[in-house]
Amino acid sequence: MTAPLLSLSRRLRRTPFAEGVAAAGVKAYTVYNHMLLPTVFRSIEEDYRHLKEAVQVWDVSCERQVELRGPDAGRLMQMLTPRDLRGMTPGQCYYVPIVDETGGMLNDPVAVKLAEDRWWISIADSDLLYWVRATAHGWRLDVLVDEPDVSPLAVQGPKADDLMAAVFGDAVRDIRFFRFGVFDFQGRDMVIARSGYSKQGGFEIYLEGSDIGMDLWAALMEAGRPLDVHAGCPNLIERIEGGLLSYGNDMTDDNTPHECGLGRFCNTHTAIGCIGRDALLRVAKEGPVQQIRALEIDGPPVPGCDHWWPVMANGKRVGRVSSAAWSPDVGTNVAIGMVRMTHWDAGTRVQVDTPDGLREAQVREAFWA
Amino acid sequence: MTAPLLSLSRRLRRTPFAEGVAAAGVKAYTVYNHMLLPTVFRSIEEDYRHLKEAVQVWDVSCERQVELRGPDAGRLMQMLTPRDLRGMTPGQCYYVPIVDETGGMLNDPVAVKLAEDRWWISIADSDLLYWVRATAHGWRLDVLVDEPDVSPLAVQGPKADDLMAAVFGDAVRDIRFFRFGVFDFQGRDMVIARSGYSKQGGFEIYLEGSDIGMDLWAALMEAGRPLDVHAGCPNLIERIEGGLLSYGNDMTDDNTPHECGLGRFCNTHTAIGCIGRDALLRVAKEGPVQQIRALEIDGPPVPGCDHWWPVMANGKRVGRVSSAAWSPDVGTNVAIGMVRMTHWDAGTRVQVDTPDGLREAQVREAFWA
Repeated sequence: MTAPLLSLSRRLRRTPFAEGVAAAGVKAYTVYNHMLLPTVFRSIEEDYRHLKEAVQVWDVSCERQVELRGPDAGRLMQMLTPRDLRGMTPGQCYYVPIVDETGGMLNDPVAVKLAEDRWWISIADSDLLYWVRATAHGWRLDVLVDEPDVSPLAVQGPKADDLMAAVFGDAVRDIRFFRFGVFDFQGRDMVIARSGYSKQGGFEIYLEGSDIGMDLWAALMEAGRPLDVHAGCPNLIERIEGGLLSYGNDMTDDNTPHECGLGRFCNTHTAIGCIGRDALLRVAKEGPVQQIRALEIDGPPVPGCDHWWPVMANGKRVGRVSSAAWSPDVGTNVAIGMVRMTHWDAGTRVQVDTPDGLREAQVREAFWA
Repeated sequence: MTAPLLSLSRRLRRTPFAEGVAAAGVKAYTVYNHMLLPTVFRSIEEDYRHLKEAVQVWDVSCERQVELRGPDAGRLMQMLTPRDLRGMTPGQCYYVPIVDETGGMLNDPVAVKLAEDRWWISIADSDLLYWVRATAHGWRLDVLVDEPDVSPLAVQGPKADDLMAAVFGDAVRDIRFFRFGVFDFQGRDMVIARSGYSKQGGFEIYLEGSDIGMDLWAALMEAGRPLDVHAGCPNLIERIEGGLLSYGNDMTDDNTPHECGLGRFCNTHTAIGCIGRDALLRVAKEGPVQQIRALEIDGPPVPGCDHWWPVMANGKRVGRVSSAAWSPDVGTNVAIGMVRMTHWDAGTRVQVDTPDGLREAQVREAFWA
């Protein structure tokens, strides 16, 4: 699988950091929420090594926000997710499965509670805005639903605290995991959360106002020079090792949160009013018959996974692999897949039908456990 | 603007015709509805010339369908669009603007009426499924809303009738514009409409069932040999010349249908129940202050247009160009843009701020008129 060329157009939106990304020598992109998302700078392996040792600045503008504002914002937010939000206070972020009326996953965003009547939903790759806006309209809620001019910039890696402190002051070090604070940059308020799509630690800066995007990028790059800062991006190997799911790859609207291993975020008995409650109560009672699992695939590095690879046992299909890559640190191919309950116990031997032929494989305890 | 590399993953879905597209030597893709859409085979200019002279087979699987099925299907369809659907009969296709409650464009699909209680909506690049499903749920309508396994394959060009007749029989020649018939292929029913995203004439075959995608592709390629058939794709030059709008490029949810020149599809007084009625009644009364126009940009071929280029007059911004390309047949750069009413009359001289600098330009009667 060689990478083809991508034709650019306005429809594939540029980001406020596009100039910095280009200058840093981006090698490839994907498209995410109708926006360009870098995928490789030096090589996936070099980017991986550097991410685990230093600090990177990621243009994740494509994590677009859906903003809810108004007296019914909280009610609408609870309608959207089976996770119980009653204990959530302004300043917190929650990972929230969003499901349709049948319990099928529509997105797996992070909800950011800015105030009792104001939320951001930082979305994965689907037009959740359409679902939220139609829901608000259909239920006649008093709430405005919009996509604001907010573009997240992530700072990830073991030296993320040092880099952020150099730009925003030492107070950023005190931000706890999945909490956020508001910090000044050039006289503007920036929401900064301790979060991000890696297991190496770090922050996400919610840039409000595209006009100062390159100023923010440049300030981080300049301050990070002694820390060996590099432009980076979500890393395929690291995120599979870390068990970070990717909506559209590892799950679709066919899957319930329970199948995705997200049952712990479903408080279907107390998340009163959530859409999909009836279906998910049933699922919670019976349990899923297939579930996301970590897999180890034997042999040399697998090719890129651009379609579901069947997981086989005794000639029968028992699942599918949706993400896979060679991991230098684990020393094998790491993968994420959906496996039927008959074969989902750790240690179960299976086979994976890769483009290079059938490979021996094993269901594992999470690489990230 | 050189084309960067595109990283493949399962999230960017392959199509049932992917093998044929690759074998035909596709040179580049874009991403559309989370799916790969070819953009270039030989070169944009060669593809353009060939499209106007012969016949091409286009993998437009990315025109995904939203299926409405059930007693409230018709009612829901009318809620979605300000176009009056009362006169529409099974067998017809309608181009339908879809708007939100404020009259902002969410998509500009083709509605296909299969039966009184069954519709397909053949969508442009946004997750309209989310809007439709949440609307059905919020209004408690008796209708199932799904994305079926349907992938359109277009046959476009002056020799399209001959090619289609060779595969499906002479009866396809009788299909009228924006009508469809049902034809047999390998024992399966296929909806075939006279439609497509070019001005060269042709058909769209709604392949139901991905498994026989390559059989259909191969049958068309084989039968088309004497007609110089080639794999093709929507052509940037031809579609701008033809005034075919592209959702996400030429318009977004900021724009009303009237701004997009689609006012003739808004029967806001008789499309009873449509969402956005109140806002569009107001717009119809006052008229838009900016509107889509054809433009001619002077000078040598412009670079690719990957962001809005400001349209200027006397140093003030009066609009934006969203699509542009050199047209060999018109002998100038053709463009589509949104221009304020002060400058939208045909013949008005303006300037366009391209990446190559300010260019003289002129608002034109449509190239396609």
